[in-house]
Amino acid sequence: MSMSSPTIELTKALISRPSVTPEDAGCQELMIEMLEAMGFVIERLPFEEVTNLWARRGTEGPLFCFAGHTDVVPTGPVEKWTHHPFEPTISEGYLYGRGAADMKGSIAAFMTALQRFIEHHPDHKGSIALLITSDEEGPFINGTTRVIDHLEARNEKINWCIVGEPSSTDKVGDIIKNGRRGSLSGKLRVNGIQGHVAYPHLVRNPIHEAAPALAELASTIWDEGNDFFPPTSFQISNIHAGTGATNVVPGSIEVDFNFRFSTEVTADELKERVRDLLDKHNLEWDIDWILSGNPFLTAEGDLVAAAQASIKAITGLETELSTSGGTSDGRFIAPTGAQVLELGPVNATIHQIDERVRVKDLDTLSDLYENIMARLLV
Amino acid sequence: MSMSSPTIELTKALISRPSVTPEDAGCQELMIEMLEAMGFVIERLPFEEVTNLWARRGTEGPLFCFAGHTDVVPTGPVEKWTHHPFEPTISEGYLYGRGAADMKGSIAAFMTALQRFIEHHPDHKGSIALLITSDEEGPFINGTTRVIDHLEARNEKINWCIVGEPSSTDKVGDIIKNGRRGSLSGKLRVNGIQGHVAYPHLVRNPIHEAAPALAELASTIWDEGNDFFPPTSFQISNIHAGTGATNVVPGSIEVDFNFRFSTEVTADELKERVRDLLDKHNLEWDIDWILSGNPFLTAEGDLVAAAQASIKAITGLETELSTSGGTSDGRFIAPTGAQVLELGPVNATIHQIDERVRVKDLDTLSDLYENIMARLLV
Ligand SMILES: [Zn+2]
Ligand SMILES: [Zn+2]
Repeated sequence: MSMSSPTIELTKALISRPSVTPEDAGCQELMIEMLEAMGFVIERLPFEEVTNLWARRGTEGPLFCFAGHTDVVPTGPVEKWTHHPFEPTISEGYLYGRGAADMKGSIAAFMTALQRFIEHHPDHKGSIALLITSDEEGPFINGTTRVIDHLEARNEKINWCIVGEPSSTDKVGDIIKNGRRGSLSGKLRVNGIQGHVAYPHLVRNPIHEAAPALAELASTIWDEGNDFFPPTSFQISNIHAGTGATNVVPGSIEVDFNFRFSTEVTADELKERVRDLLDKHNLEWDIDWILSGNPFLTAEGDLVAAAQASIKAITGLETELSTSGGTSDGRFIAPTGAQVLELGPVNATIHQIDERVRVKDLDTLSDLYENIMARLLV
Repeated sequence: MSMSSPTIELTKALISRPSVTPEDAGCQELMIEMLEAMGFVIERLPFEEVTNLWARRGTEGPLFCFAGHTDVVPTGPVEKWTHHPFEPTISEGYLYGRGAADMKGSIAAFMTALQRFIEHHPDHKGSIALLITSDEEGPFINGTTRVIDHLEARNEKINWCIVGEPSSTDKVGDIIKNGRRGSLSGKLRVNGIQGHVAYPHLVRNPIHEAAPALAELASTIWDEGNDFFPPTSFQISNIHAGTGATNVVPGSIEVDFNFRFSTEVTADELKERVRDLLDKHNLEWDIDWILSGNPFLTAEGDLVAAAQASIKAITGLETELSTSGGTSDGRFIAPTGAQVLELGPVNATIHQIDERVRVKDLDTLSDLYENIMARLLV
């Protein structure tokens, strides 16, 4: 096993650039230099403080796209890291550094896969693109979603998209994400009437009034899930009421909750069921809703078939399709009609101290990406 | 109706002393000067920052006692007052000032009632005492409870005690408090397992687990009350859980609650029922309990009879016995075996901006206190 390769070297070069979200720290310019040499047309698309890149090689359809992000989450206390998080270090078969697994390794693998593929197939079918942002770990307002708006405005459609998020659990390729649950958040306020605990007939305690409704929300089965999605889940993250004084009944209670929901329900259905439940309990309530993303699913088709075949051919693994885990920028790409898959390295250490990636997985990942392109574009 | 009288003048002199709890601001020294002239033996009993007074006239039993406090609650924004809260002002039949109703008017009425009573009955039966503190509106740690400990240590027993708290609702004497509910507080913590909302199988949401138990606590009927007490009430005052992040399920929830309880249950019974309920819901919980006071009741006897007869004779009112409202220092005196009543002015404005007392009620109150003493000690 080599401790050096173009993919490893490029991953190290990217980790060295301290691109804590929403910073890009020069990562995309490094990519642009390489992409221009491969014949890509470059569009820099900065929005507010976010650096975005759309690069395309070819003008015909179908359009194959690699999507990802150059930003990383903060390092946490640097002194807790075995190696400095922005000084990429190889030790015992692992490359350490912030972003090693999420997702500078994938970005590097995109680039080296493209270099080999274009060298061997300069006249490939269709077109190849990269959609890169520095806003995936941030508020995801001025990143992928704005680039997609830009493409939609000129009716530029992605057919197949591989997102480089770290999808794997034990071995690279053991799991690909072919969809994600939706995420719907609500900030609920239930109002009562404030007063002194010694005069219970003069108060309407909003905590008491809300408690049975919260118990019912927590125990409701929203759906049973399906072949691709686990059941929709409801979680309360924050609950606050009270003046601090222990002899005062507060006038209101605030509750933050979140649904991770399957394709068996819609956001509107969930909102209506919550409203009905609160009304049934005769509460005086209001909710601010935030829909972070609808669920998406790439159940079958060319892209899933190509990815499964490539993984089998290169790693021997029968990959598993999954929709579990957090949201990803795939939720902004899938609604355009694209087939979207997430395939990337093992995610065990992402967002943690001593984030790392198995060195040999980087070359395997590059081979996988190249092989998938070959199945779709040759 | 006179706008001046010894009781009115003394009330004004006390209001002028800005004795925001735990300050006494010279009120008790003013009383001491008058009490010494009446032949009382004075014991100054300062504990920490609290000023306390025990004054007794006579050595025989039975012992009749007036109890009260010279401290007042803070004024709130002075500019919102019609008259400066520490500059007593008479306007349209009311005396304005912080403490006018709670309870410097009562203190003044104690003193003038004593002056007249002792002038007419210098050789009264038994003994008369005053138990005065500057800590009733504060944490009530170094006030009445410490003085009672001091008396108990030398086996000095009060037989009859009138507390000057503002018991009246519309007219002075319309209600006397012949007991108070108990107050039992708990700080409940329910533990779960923290985690990310996207991985519900890895968390145990303490808010979800606690909600049905809180709903049941809020809807439980603890007792039906009795002839003297309303039903025991349970109120949650504060509830807090959450890291602030809307994608994290917290590891625990904290809930402050309070019982105001009748003589139909004991604090220990309430604790046991709460524990059983939490265990029934399979919660991982702990509670810090604070018993602020057990309920007390002076159902019948010489003191109630004397107060009822005096009120009927002087005001024509059939007074009502009540145990409603907040706690008072009576809870520390009653457990010694004393008969305890609260009788004072109308409480409509206490603890508020523009606290005031009807001027003529001060003289009525002084007459009532004198008349009660006459019935018991002559
Ligand atoms: Zn990522
Ligand atoms: Zn008071």
